[in-house]
Amino acid sequence: MKHVLIGQPLPTAGLIHERIAKLQALAVFASDAISSVAYAPEEILLVLALAGSAAFTLSLPIAIAVVALIAIVTYSYRQTIYRYPQGGGTYRVTMDNFGDTAALLAGSSLMLGYILTAAVSTAAGVAAVTSAFPGLFSIRVELALVSLFLLTLVNLRGVKESATIFALPTYVFIFSMLAMIGIGLWRMVMGLPPVEAVASLPSAVIAPTSVFLLLRAFASGCSAMTGTEAMADGVAAFKEPQAKNAVVTLLWMAVILSTLFLGMAILAQHLHILPREGETVLSQLARGVVGRGPFYFLLQGATALILFLAVNTAFADFPRLASFLAADRFLPRQFIFRGDRLAFSTGIIALGVLGGLLLLVVHADVHLLIPLYAVGVFLSFTFSQSGMFKRWWTLREPGWQQGMIINGIGALVTGMVTLLVAITKFTHGAWMILVLLPMFVILFKGIRSHYDRVKAQLFLKEQTLPNFPLPPSKTIILISDVNKATARILRYAMTLSSDVVALHVTDDLDAARKLREKWVKYHIRTHLTILESPYRSLVYPVLAYLDSIESEAQKTPVTIILSAIVPKHWWEYILHNQDGLRIKTALLFRANTVVIDYPYHLD
Amino acid sequence: MKHVLIGQPLPTAGLIHERIAKLQALAVFASDAISSVAYAPEEILLVLALAGSAAFTLSLPIAIAVVALIAIVTYSYRQTIYRYPQGGGTYRVTMDNFGDTAALLAGSSLMLGYILTAAVSTAAGVAAVTSAFPGLFSIRVELALVSLFLLTLVNLRGVKESATIFALPTYVFIFSMLAMIGIGLWRMVMGLPPVEAVASLPSAVIAPTSVFLLLRAFASGCSAMTGTEAMADGVAAFKEPQAKNAVVTLLWMAVILSTLFLGMAILAQHLHILPREGETVLSQLARGVVGRGPFYFLLQGATALILFLAVNTAFADFPRLASFLAADRFLPRQFIFRGDRLAFSTGIIALGVLGGLLLLVVHADVHLLIPLYAVGVFLSFTFSQSGMFKRWWTLREPGWQQGMIINGIGALVTGMVTLLVAITKFTHGAWMILVLLPMFVILFKGIRSHYDRVKAQLFLKEQTLPNFPLPPSKTIILISDVNKATARILRYAMTLSSDVVALHVTDDLDAARKLREKWVKYHIRTHLTILESPYRSLVYPVLAYLDSIESEAQKTPVTIILSAIVPKHWWEYILHNQDGLRIKTALLFRANTVVIDYPYHLD
Repeated sequence: MKHVLIGQPLPTAGLIHERIAKLQALAVFASDAISSVAYAPEEILLVLALAGSAAFTLSLPIAIAVVALIAIVTYSYRQTIYRYPQGGGTYRVTMDNFGDTAALLAGSSLMLGYILTAAVSTAAGVAAVTSAFPGLFSIRVELALVSLFLLTLVNLRGVKESATIFALPTYVFIFSMLAMIGIGLWRMVMGLPPVEAVASLPSAVIAPTSVFLLLRAFASGCSAMTGTEAMADGVAAFKEPQAKNAVVTLLWMAVILSTLFLGMAILAQHLHILPREGETVLSQLARGVVGRGPFYFLLQGATALILFLAVNTAFADFPRLASFLAADRFLPRQFIFRGDRLAFSTGIIALGVLGGLLLLVVHADVHLLIPLYAVGVFLSFTFSQSGMFKRWWTLREPGWQQGMIINGIGALVTGMVTLLVAITKFTHGAWMILVLLPMFVILFKGIRSHYDRVKAQLFLKEQTLPNFPLPPSKTIILISDVNKATARILRYAMTLSSDVVALHVTDDLDAARKLREKWVKYHIRTHLTILESPYRSLVYPVLAYLDSIESEAQKTPVTIILSAIVPKHWWEYILHNQDGLRIKTALLFRANTVVIDYPYHLD
Repeated sequence: MKHVLIGQPLPTAGLIHERIAKLQALAVFASDAISSVAYAPEEILLVLALAGSAAFTLSLPIAIAVVALIAIVTYSYRQTIYRYPQGGGTYRVTMDNFGDTAALLAGSSLMLGYILTAAVSTAAGVAAVTSAFPGLFSIRVELALVSLFLLTLVNLRGVKESATIFALPTYVFIFSMLAMIGIGLWRMVMGLPPVEAVASLPSAVIAPTSVFLLLRAFASGCSAMTGTEAMADGVAAFKEPQAKNAVVTLLWMAVILSTLFLGMAILAQHLHILPREGETVLSQLARGVVGRGPFYFLLQGATALILFLAVNTAFADFPRLASFLAADRFLPRQFIFRGDRLAFSTGIIALGVLGGLLLLVVHADVHLLIPLYAVGVFLSFTFSQSGMFKRWWTLREPGWQQGMIINGIGALVTGMVTLLVAITKFTHGAWMILVLLPMFVILFKGIRSHYDRVKAQLFLKEQTLPNFPLPPSKTIILISDVNKATARILRYAMTLSSDVVALHVTDDLDAARKLREKWVKYHIRTHLTILESPYRSLVYPVLAYLDSIESEAQKTPVTIILSAIVPKHWWEYILHNQDGLRIKTALLFRANTVVIDYPYHLD
């Protein structure tokens, strides 16, 4: 079953072959950023709509500002990739330059960002589908959860195959978007009316046009930039020369994203498109430019697919980042291990579960997630750029002055945008992120300090290891009756120790007498001790008995053997071993005590 | 924590003192039947409402028919109590006279009935509260779940205390209901108008008055009888003379129930009360008779409390019945054991969980549960009466002719009512019960046959027990590093066996070489075997290794020792032992293999 869904196991040595070429890398790492044109322009319009339709003319300048920001961040990240070709991106850069706490803050921001990417892009992908087929709008939450589940499965199969599966839709999306924008601009220049009337009532003025509102609209538009980091974080997955390939792919991505973003902003303004529930702005735009024909459906399909591929970006990077944190012992060790298919299974499953919960909570509504989105991402940008700035200053490598200027501007701009987003979106949800981030950092540090304490405790001084023979372990077998299981447990106990006692706890002295008769009848030579339990408890008498022999016992641990019935079917467990479970739980924290489950396999 | 909520443990010998006097027994066992006046008359009116307000005049004849049925069933059960003073009621009677299958069918009917009682009475109790305080209507599901949870806790404390806690509200309910009916009848005779106008629009005719509709209304009214069985099932809880006390209490109950039921039917018809959402018929009635004053709130409060006490009836009897089935090995053994406080903890918790689920599914709506309710209860009545009929015929004890006539009539009448309820309520949910009952019987028989098979497998022939010494168990310790845990595990393994091998699985040969160096550095004489795992799996190499030594091994089991880190806090578990868990799961079903968790307790 597992192999059908996940595929055959792959050897570790196969890791090198899983590296990917530029065209595939664009599909895996850039889909997040590029696909954001499916919702980012809409988010700008949503904020401007508060100031009435007239304010929509402001969407173009805001889009230009976002594109300028993309250029600055891209240029800054170009340098990061060359200096940190092993990948790790922000987390590694911040760790190197500012230490643990800052790196964990940056790492937490990114991890939250990936979880939000998984949720936002899934919800937006489903919105593309339900815009084309409004009948599905009522089951959008179910559609989103099923999509996320399928993407989790795909990713458990491994990264190379995902790139193969998803490369096509990215390029279909990019080229059909370019075609749509081209047609739209041509029609605009020619002065042609919309192919299909996009019915939109002028919106009422709820808030006056203010600087704060414009900044909020800009902050919403910044959600377009959430994927930029992915490329720098994933350099290790590129084919050689890794850094160069990553930089080229990054530049492609920035150009494509800017073109689509600006094109959409121009057309949306020209066609007077208003955001409305049940249909995305992109869908309205496509209907206005090309009408509800085959091309419209191709574009909606490609939009949905590239958005699911953006989810895949998160699946490519969240587990990798989690593995970096786990390698530094800030997360449980199981995040390090690659599963049978070389994918970081634990991280993938964790992302699937967290993203799914988020979708459930917001009922797959993109607008509710956007305010949470940008603040964490820009915080990590700021850390990354500041880290590079400090690195240039410290190392003074060739070209350090120019590098310092570029990353200094990058740090300044992204830092200001972080503040801007935190302030303008604070009451809409950004406060949650500001609460969650320190909690994450504390959690990660707690995990690390736990592992450190354990390591210190387990450290062995050379002279402490004994090789001499020890006295036999005092061994107690707990029995309820004389039967085949008892016989086998007695046999086994005798191979382990020469000091064996059988113990029977009961509140029924008649039954105890019968047991003692059987003991004689079967000629069992092992000593039988019967404990009366007036409170019907099995656990307390056993603990009291152990306390009484403890004083006699040497340093060798006391061994307690329980008969564990192993039925053929898992659901038969509920019919057995309840007493054993209670005993084991009670003895778990008792020092110098070892509990053995001696299995009796039923036919 | 457990002791604060549940109380100090009680000794088994205290069981006899937990028996209860008649006045308390009425509170514990009769509250179910008596409290049904809070919903049964309303259910009759709800069906009649389909035929329009004019049909309401028929509610009185139907109520009289229900009272006649109460008389017949009560008189029949009187005989059952005298013949089966050890309690056990229907299940025991049916087992004695018709064998396993019929007894399990009757037992299943009763158990379903108790679960439904828990849900219906909780929902009705909450409805009494929300009728008085309509603002709480929107949180009725939460209120119901919290009430059920509190009742579960109370019952885990033990039956005597519950009787003490609940005796007062029963009597307050009975006397305030009698007072309210008395005032109402007096006002009716005097020709006085309602104190408070109970606004009710005449209902439209949805279905014509038909015999089928009348029978359906009667079937709904039969939900009043669901508690009658409880007394016979619980004879063992009465003070001596048990049977006589139980019969007297049963008769009290029947008289009180009939009086309240008829009185309510007369008044509801006189005041033209119509069932409506958000307020119970009883609440409307009380407002009409005494107005929304202190007495009204007293009555609503007492109604809510006696309904919660009815839930308690289910908590008194479901676990007891489950313990009878478990004693006959039709349910898991843990249903037999009394907890620290002498209550059947497993049964109580099971009832709390199942009742809570039911409340969640129907959103605490009484009307949705009623159709499921009566069919199972009357099926068990029929089995009980038929069983008594057969018993008179077989044993021919003194007075057998008279007994046979009484129980024969009882069997005939309850059998007819069972059919009637099954047919008239079939499409409203009774079909579910008809599907569930055979499934329960199959489940119970499956459990019994599992226990029988296990017993047969474990049976030990006298000559098979060996007392001779055996060769040492081949012992394998799995290690990841050389540290204090490793040192202690090595020590312990050497006390158990003279044939110890240390095993290390890795995909990193550098780390393996370092481990071997440490082995030398610490002068460890135990043999170290390193297994390379190209697929990074820990489990498969260990399994393969075990297969390879299996051929050499004698009949003595192979022992595998794992180091289990026991952290101080339970939530730290997620940071440890993931590998151990995987190994243990893989080895659980392997024959001739014993896995030992050797605990290392962290400070």
